[in-house]
This record gives sequence, C-alpha cells and structure tokens, in this order.
Amino acid sequence: MKLALTIGDPAGVGPELALQVLAKPLAGTVPILVGSAELLRRVSAATGLPCDAPVVSKEEFLANPPEGPAILDLPLDGLSGLQPGAPNSLSGQAAYHWFTEAIDLTLAGKFDAVVTCPLSKEALHMGGHLYDGHTEILVERSGASRHAMMLTAPEVTATLVTTHIAISEVAAQLTIERICEVTRLTAAALPLWRATASPPRIAVLGLNPHAGENGLFGDEEARLIEPAMEILRAEGINLVGPMSADTAFIPVLRKDIDGYIAMYHDQGLIPLKTLAFDEAVNVTLGLPFIRTSVDHGTAYDLAWQGTAQVTSLYAACDAALRLAEKAKLSKISG
Amino acid sequence: MKLALTIGDPAGVGPELALQVLAKPLAGTVPILVGSAELLRRVSAATGLPCDAPVVSKEEFLANPPEGPAILDLPLDGLSGLQPGAPNSLSGQAAYHWFTEAIDLTLAGKFDAVVTCPLSKEALHMGGHLYDGHTEILVERSGASRHAMMLTAPEVTATLVTTHIAISEVAAQLTIERICEVTRLTAAALPLWRATASPPRIAVLGLNPHAGENGLFGDEEARLIEPAMEILRAEGINLVGPMSADTAFIPVLRKDIDGYIAMYHDQGLIPLKTLAFDEAVNVTLGLPFIRTSVDHGTAYDLAWQGTAQVTSLYAACDAALRLAEKAKLSKISG
Repeated sequence: MKLALTIGDPAGVGPELALQVLAKPLAGTVPILVGSAELLRRVSAATGLPCDAPVVSKEEFLANPPEGPAILDLPLDGLSGLQPGAPNSLSGQAAYHWFTEAIDLTLAGKFDAVVTCPLSKEALHMGGHLYDGHTEILVERSGASRHAMMLTAPEVTATLVTTHIAISEVAAQLTIERICEVTRLTAAALPLWRATASPPRIAVLGLNPHAGENGLFGDEEARLIEPAMEILRAEGINLVGPMSADTAFIPVLRKDIDGYIAMYHDQGLIPLKTLAFDEAVNVTLGLPFIRTSVDHGTAYDLAWQGTAQVTSLYAACDAALRLAEKAKLSKISG
Repeated sequence: MKLALTIGDPAGVGPELALQVLAKPLAGTVPILVGSAELLRRVSAATGLPCDAPVVSKEEFLANPPEGPAILDLPLDGLSGLQPGAPNSLSGQAAYHWFTEAIDLTLAGKFDAVVTCPLSKEALHMGGHLYDGHTEILVERSGASRHAMMLTAPEVTATLVTTHIAISEVAAQLTIERICEVTRLTAAALPLWRATASPPRIAVLGLNPHAGENGLFGDEEARLIEPAMEILRAEGINLVGPMSADTAFIPVLRKDIDGYIAMYHDQGLIPLKTLAFDEAVNVTLGLPFIRTSVDHGTAYDLAWQGTAQVTSLYAACDAALRLAEKAKLSKISG
C-alpha cells in the first residue's frame, strides 16, 4: 500500500515522526513523505534521525512513481529560515500546501491512503487558511457530502456525533439526521476496520447521565436518539442503547461492542484516551479515500528534539493499511 | 470501627451483599446490619448465605451495644410477603426507614460511619418518600449546609460539581461558588482518604472539549473555572487546570493527581468506571459523619440469587474504615 504521509506543521513534531516511519516503514506499506526535502534534512541534522530515502519532485513522481519509500519534495520559499517550536504563518502555509497536494494526488489515484501528521489550527489561520483543521480541508477538497470523525484504539472505537463545540451547544446540535448519518458511516466502516460481528455491533450512547433515566434528566434520548435508532434498525444496523455512558466502557460490556456512537467529544475521547492514549488513531469517515491521522497535536514544545513518541503514527499507518486492504478487496469482490 | 451497614432496598441485591460482609467482616470493622432480621433470614434461605450473627432490637442496641458483628433488627409490617425483583412501595418505605434510623444513631454517636447498600429512587417515590436518593436524605437529616459526591477507586478519585441533571443544563448550573465549595470539600477530604502530596494535588477539569481551547468552544473556563481556581489558590489549595478532560486521565498524568473536580456526572464517572468498575466507592462529603456507599444500583434482576458481586461493598467498608480512622486521629491531634 502506498501511503501519502504528510509531515504536518514543519515547526512541530510531524517531520521527525515521519522520518522515523520513513526509516522503518510498517510491513506492507510504502510511505511517501509529502513535504520539503530541505526541511526534512534540517530536522534530520537536528535530531540525528536518518534521512536517506530517494527524493523525487512532483514531476518525477507523476512520470515515474517510486516503488519504495521516498520523499515527495514540494519546496516552499523561506523554509530554510523556519524555526521549530511555535506556530507561524509560513508553517501554516506549508502544512496546508503539502496536505492539499496529498489530497489531490490521492483523488487522482496516486496513493492508496493519506496518513497525516499534526498541524495547528492557529498556524493555518496565521497562514491565511481559515480552516479548523484537517477534516474541514478534506471535506471541502474532496466534495464529501457527509463525514464523521472515528477514533479507534485496540480497546475502544468511537465515532462522534458532535465534535469541537461547547458543551452548552451539544443538545441543540443533536438531530435525528446527524445521529443516523454518523451511525451509518460507522456501520459501513467497521467491517473494514476490524474483525467484528456481522453486522457489527454498535452501541449508541445516551446524552445525559444514566441515559436520562427515563426522562428524569433530559429528553434527548426519547426525542432524538431512540427515533434515530428505530430508523437505523429498520435498515439492518445492529444497535444497542441508548446506553448509560458511564458504564458503557466497562470491560464486560466493551468486549462485545465493535463501535460506539458518542454524542459529544469528551464522551468518546475520555474513555478512548484513558484506556489507550498512545495508540489512538483518527479516521475520517465519508471521504472517497482512506484517511487516518495521529491523535495528538503538534507538540511544539518537543519539536525537532527527536523525543516525541511515534506510536500513534505507526498505529495510523496500520489502520490505513488495514482499511485500504479491505477496501480493495471489497471493490474486487463487489 | 463500628459501621452502620444499611441493607438498602430489600427487593434488590443489598441484603445478600450485607450478609456476605456480616459473615466475613473486613479486618478492623464491626458491621452492624441495619434492617430486618426476618427479611435477612429469608434472603439467607434463598441464597444459602449464612445469617447467624446475634440479632438485637433497637432497645437492646442502645442499652448494651454489641461488641461484634450483629443485626440491628428494625421490623416492618408486611415484610414477610415482600418479593424480590422489582421496586414497590413497601421496599421503598423499608429502605427509607432503616436508612434514617442509621443516620440518627450515627448522629447520636452510636456508629463511626454509615455504609449503604443501594436503594431505588422509584421505590422511594412509590413508598411516599420524594427524594432522589441517599444523598438528599442525608443532607436534609444531618442539616449539612453543603455537600458533594466524591467517587473514588484505586486509579481515580473525582468529585462532581453537578450530578443528576441534563447535559443541556450543566453550563447554566455551574457557578464560581459551587466550584469553590466542591473543591474545598475535596481538599479537606483527600488527606483523610489516601496518602497524597501535602497539600493534595487537585486537577480541575475544563467543561468544554480541549478545556475550551482558549475560548474557541465555550467561555466557562475563563468566566467561571479560572476565577474559582484563583480564589482557591489564594486559600492554599494545590490546583492544576483547567485540564482538557480527554487527556486528564492518561496514566502519566493521573499518577500525580490525588483528586479531580469534574464539572458533570459522566466527565468524572466515565473514566472512573472504565478503569475500575467494581472497586468504585461513593463518599458523601460535607456531612458531620463519614458515609460511603457502593457505586452500583439495586440490580433487581439479580436479587436474592447470591450472584451479585460484593467487591464494591467491601471497598465502601474499606473507605469508611480509612476515613473514620484518620478522622479520629485528626480529632485527637487537632
């Protein structure tokens, strides 16, 4: 599998993580780093990490795609002066440029999947690109009409109905349509992602404490979640819930659940990160291609020191490999 | 330590859990079951659990307090016909009666702590006692002017700023005063509860995803949580935060945190139950005496079968013992 591995914000830990994967690719994957060769050489010099893979220009890449790990060199003016450790307009412009090139090349069939290192919303904005992050860029650029963020780790997989909004707005943002959309995307993705019951068993979490305890604390379970579940069950989706979120992740329950539908960010991410902080992977559902990401930020304070943990990036490569393999199989067989 | 161990709703799993603790008390504790001897004998016959401790009436108990484990018999009419497995008016009346007797005797100095088996809000209401649960009865009966629910397990201890309310109401219910009150109660209780830094290190969680990410998703961190923390720090309380709730419980962080202040029910209970479901104990802070409880419900579906797990009740006895021992020491030394 050929992976477009974007190096993310060049002032953060992305480049050094990408160099580690380039030096020791995960079996079955051919990582092509999408970034600047000059910048990667500077990070290599600062960290002592090797950087000896072939470097190809975009023209070379298109004319004669590399068979093994390589660096797809997309240079930018001014990078030689870029310093690590803080977001800036150039780092935001660079991260945006490399990421959109990776998307376009993947849409053109040049890669099997996109795996991303972290970028910074603040840097994107300083660079004039007013997006919240990777997902918004992906959705716009690929023309996806619906999408969802699935976080996955060995112990828990959760897809989020709402993401980066205030807790005070969560209840107002929930709709039957959105719960259905997220659950359908999850039901379609889970068989690609891990060995599961068939159809996969999905737990829909309640919004309120004790899933509302029969309407004592909030009516969203009866008004929105249960009607959505009724629609989804009629489509053949295998659901349990609405489950009380506090007990939904205890070992005896989670062992039988392939995926959770979380109503808000922390409802899904608290159990996931509490159980498996370093191994969590972010998968964007609903795109015309596979995209996975590390589940951590730019960690500017650690940048270019060679100490950042690469566990999550390997997990993201592994997830991309598995998803892309099964997606190919399902296309062949389907 | 003499523990008033209330048997909870007699139609649930409380009586059989209490019988197990009566037969094998935790070292250092003298459990006195507060309930009906007749009912406990029926549960003993149904489950095969022993029930051979001395039975004392309230008059005998007051005149000549037992030195060892015993049953304080507070009979009620109609109990001989009570069936397990569902809430009913008699089970609610009985649970209320036994619990309030235990409170009054503890306020009178006859017990060192109260440990409670589960009761049911539905049964309480059917029995004409319109309380949400133990806590509301405790607060009213003991005249406590402030209180908080602290949940504790070996891995995580969390106190809740808001409890059983809809997610849509959480933001509106947060106040600087309430955050201060809960944190002060926690700071006072933690040194009694486990070996900690001195003063104990308390993490205050943000309300919103990423603790609001500098106001991008909600302003409660800046408007309420940070001002509360400023007041509390001036009082000498050792605080970190507002922390992003999704990463606050990862191993490298939680090992240095003695207690968390959670803004809503599931923010504290998801990580606690995910990490330590069977060992969680509920401690009511702010009362004039020690009170701990199992952290599970009546489990009517398992009642009188002898299969319910007693782990949480032993953990509650252990917590009561430790809290009561240190509270005595601090009274002696203080």
